[in-house]
Amino acid sequence: MSKFKESYFTMKEDDALEYATFVLNFFSLDAELSCREIGDGNLNYIFRIIDLKSGRSIIIKQAGPYARISDEFKVSPDRNRIESDVLKLQSKLAEGFVPEIYNYDPIMNCCVMEDLSDYVIMRKALIEHKRFPLFAEDITTFMVKTLLLTSDIVMNHKDKKESVKNFINPELCEITEDLVYTEPFYDCDRNDVIDETRKFVQKEIWSDEKFLLETAKLKFEFMTNAQSLLHGDLHTGSIFVKADSTKIIDPEFAFYGPAGYDIGNVIANLIFAYENSEATIEDTTKKKEYKNWLEETIKQVIDLFISKFKFMWKEVVTERTANYKGFDEYYLQNIIKDTAAVTGCELCRRIIGMAHVKDITGIEDINKRARAEKICLSAGKKFIIQRESFKTGADFINVIKEFEKSIN
Amino acid sequence: MSKFKESYFTMKEDDALEYATFVLNFFSLDAELSCREIGDGNLNYIFRIIDLKSGRSIIIKQAGPYARISDEFKVSPDRNRIESDVLKLQSKLAEGFVPEIYNYDPIMNCCVMEDLSDYVIMRKALIEHKRFPLFAEDITTFMVKTLLLTSDIVMNHKDKKESVKNFINPELCEITEDLVYTEPFYDCDRNDVIDETRKFVQKEIWSDEKFLLETAKLKFEFMTNAQSLLHGDLHTGSIFVKADSTKIIDPEFAFYGPAGYDIGNVIANLIFAYENSEATIEDTTKKKEYKNWLEETIKQVIDLFISKFKFMWKEVVTERTANYKGFDEYYLQNIIKDTAAVTGCELCRRIIGMAHVKDITGIEDINKRARAEKICLSAGKKFIIQRESFKTGADFINVIKEFEKSIN
Repeated sequence: MSKFKESYFTMKEDDALEYATFVLNFFSLDAELSCREIGDGNLNYIFRIIDLKSGRSIIIKQAGPYARISDEFKVSPDRNRIESDVLKLQSKLAEGFVPEIYNYDPIMNCCVMEDLSDYVIMRKALIEHKRFPLFAEDITTFMVKTLLLTSDIVMNHKDKKESVKNFINPELCEITEDLVYTEPFYDCDRNDVIDETRKFVQKEIWSDEKFLLETAKLKFEFMTNAQSLLHGDLHTGSIFVKADSTKIIDPEFAFYGPAGYDIGNVIANLIFAYENSEATIEDTTKKKEYKNWLEETIKQVIDLFISKFKFMWKEVVTERTANYKGFDEYYLQNIIKDTAAVTGCELCRRIIGMAHVKDITGIEDINKRARAEKICLSAGKKFIIQRESFKTGADFINVIKEFEKSIN
Repeated sequence: MSKFKESYFTMKEDDALEYATFVLNFFSLDAELSCREIGDGNLNYIFRIIDLKSGRSIIIKQAGPYARISDEFKVSPDRNRIESDVLKLQSKLAEGFVPEIYNYDPIMNCCVMEDLSDYVIMRKALIEHKRFPLFAEDITTFMVKTLLLTSDIVMNHKDKKESVKNFINPELCEITEDLVYTEPFYDCDRNDVIDETRKFVQKEIWSDEKFLLETAKLKFEFMTNAQSLLHGDLHTGSIFVKADSTKIIDPEFAFYGPAGYDIGNVIANLIFAYENSEATIEDTTKKKEYKNWLEETIKQVIDLFISKFKFMWKEVVTERTANYKGFDEYYLQNIIKDTAAVTGCELCRRIIGMAHVKDITGIEDINKRARAEKICLSAGKKFIIQRESFKTGADFINVIKEFEKSIN
C-alpha cells in the first residue's frame, strides 16, 4: 500500500483500517476489522481498530498537521516521534505504567499502541466520584522512576545531554509557556473567565505586582532548568485508570524540565476533583467520604513521592557529589518547592486561561462554581508565593482547607 | 587535492601549507607561504600561515582527534563545528570582539580564521605586569551582548531552544564538570597540590562538609541551567589583547549554561594576576600602582557589566513577563550570585586541580606562592559560601583584600 510510504496525510477511518490491514502485521488475515476515530483531544486523531472475531484491538494515534486546540498554535507532527520515543523509554524505566508501543511511522507521523479501552480517563471517573485506591502508589512509582532515573543524579552526564537534545520540544513547550505561564496572568484576549470570577481575578491576580513577579521567575525556571525528562502534561486527562492498574498516556509535551512540573500537575488536578465534589455532591456523608479519599490521595502523592524518592536515590545514585551530606535533602526539597509552585500555576491557569477542566466547568450552579474558582485561585496564589514553605502532603491539603473555610 | 576531501587526519605543517595553497582561495597564486604550528593549548593544532610577500596571514585551527590535555579525556573533533558556529554567532552579536572566520571544514575538522599575531595572550601580558585600560570596557560589552542576546529575555523561545540543541556539548562540558566542579573538592589522584598548601587544602576544603554541599549545588546548576550561550572557558588565556583592542578566542567549550560562569572566570583569572603581582613585584610603588589598576579592573568588570546589562535590557527585552516590576533586578542579581560562586570555583580548581595557571605556578619563591594559593583558596571558599551577598565590584575585591591582610 504505497500511499502510506509516500508522504504524510491525515487519515480517515477507512485509511486507518487499510493501514492496519496492509501495513501492520498485527491482525490475522481473516480478521474482521472495525475502525472508529475516538479522539476528543486537541492535537491528534485516535483510531481504535478491533478484530471482531478475536477481540484483539489496537490504537493508531496520528499527529494532526497542526494543533486542533487553535489554529494559532502550529505544532509540527514531529511531536509524534517524541511521544513514541518517550513511551518506549518510560516503559523501560517504569514498566507497566504506559501503553505498549507496537510501531512508530515517521512518514505518517503515527504510532500504533496498546488499546486501553478497558480503562477510563481518570478525570471523567473522578467527576463521577469514583475511587482508585492504588492511584497514589502507582503515580508516585511512575514519577519517582521517570524523574529520578532521567536526571544527572543517575544518568551518565554525556548520555543525559544527548537525551536533553533528543527531547528538545520547542513547539509544545511554547504552548505551556503561553497558556500556563503567561496569558493567565494578564487580561489576555484568549483568556476565558466567567463574569462571577472576573472581578476577583482582576484584583487578586492581574493587579498584584509582587505575585506576578513570582510567576515570571517560574516561567524562566520552566524554560531553563533541564533537570528531568518530564511527561509535561500530567493532568488527570492523561491518566487511564481501572481498579487494579494505572496507565499514563499522551507524553507529547515531554522535554527536560523541572521535576516538580509533573507532580504539581497531578496535585492541582486532584484539587480540581476535590472542589468538584465539594460543589456537586449533595449527600453530606458521601461528600465527606469522597473528599476524605481525595485528601488522603493528595497527601500520599506528596508523601509517597518523598519516601520512594529517598529510598530509590540510595539505590541508584551515581553522581559522586550527590552523595555529599545533605544534598539529597536539598535536591528533594527543591522538587517539592517546584511542585507547590506548579500546583499554583495549574490551579490559576485552568480557571483563567483558555483551557479549562470539566471538574470546574461541570459545576452547574454558577455560584458554587464561582466559589470553587475562587478557592482554586486563592490557593494557587498561596502555593506560588509561599512555595518554599511546603514540606509534606499535609501542607498541600491544608491550603485548600483554609480557603474552603474562608471563602463562601 | 583530494586527500583533504576524503577523511579526517591530523595535519602537519606541510599539510597545512598544502591545504592553504590548494583548498583555500585566500592567497594569491604567487604567494610565498610559510607555515608554523604555534599551538600550546591542549586540544588543538594551530597553524599560522603567512605570505612573506604580501604579509597577509591566516590561522588554521584543527581539532586533534582527542584532547591533548590527557588521554583520559576523549573529545570528538565535532567541537570544531561548535567553535566555528559560536564564533560566527558572537561576531554578529558582539562585532569586533572575536576573530573573523573565513572557512569551516567539517571533514578536516578545522577552521580558518583571522590571524591575531599582533595581539598578545592576556595572561602572559598580565604576568609581565602590562596594563590594558580598555579591557574592562571591552570584556563587559562582549559579555553583556553575548549573554543577554542569547537568552530567553531576548530570543524567540523556539529559536533559543534550537540554539540550545545546536550547542549541546557533552564532551567539553564533562571536562569542566570533572576538573572544575568535582576533582578539586576531594583528594583525587589527578589533583596537583604543592606540599606547602596541601595541609591547608585538607583542612579547609576537603574536610568542610558544609562547603562541599555548596559545590555540589553549583555543579548541578552548571549542568542544568540553560540560561545563555556561554563562551565556557573565558580565562585570560582565551583573551587576546593589544592597546586598543580585545579579542576573545577559543570558544570550543561553548554551551547553554548559567551566564555567571563566563563572568566568574574573568574575575578569578584577574585575581590570579593580582596575586601574581602581590608576590612578584619587588618595588612597592610599582606593585601598588599595578595592583590598583587590577583592582579597578576587577571592580569595573562587575560594575560595568551591571550597568550595561541594565541599559541594554531595556533596549532589547522581548519576553513579556521579563517586564514585570523587579524582574530585571532579580535576574541580574542571580547572575552576580552565580558570578561570585564561579569565581570561587575557578580560584579553588586552579590551585588544587590538574590545570594550573602560570600566574601562580610562576611565583618562584615557594613561600610566596603558598601564601598566594591560600589567599585564593580562602577567598574562593568565601565567594562560594557567601555568594548571595555579592552586589558590586567592591564586594569582590574586598574579599581578596581581607585575606591578603589575614594570611601571612
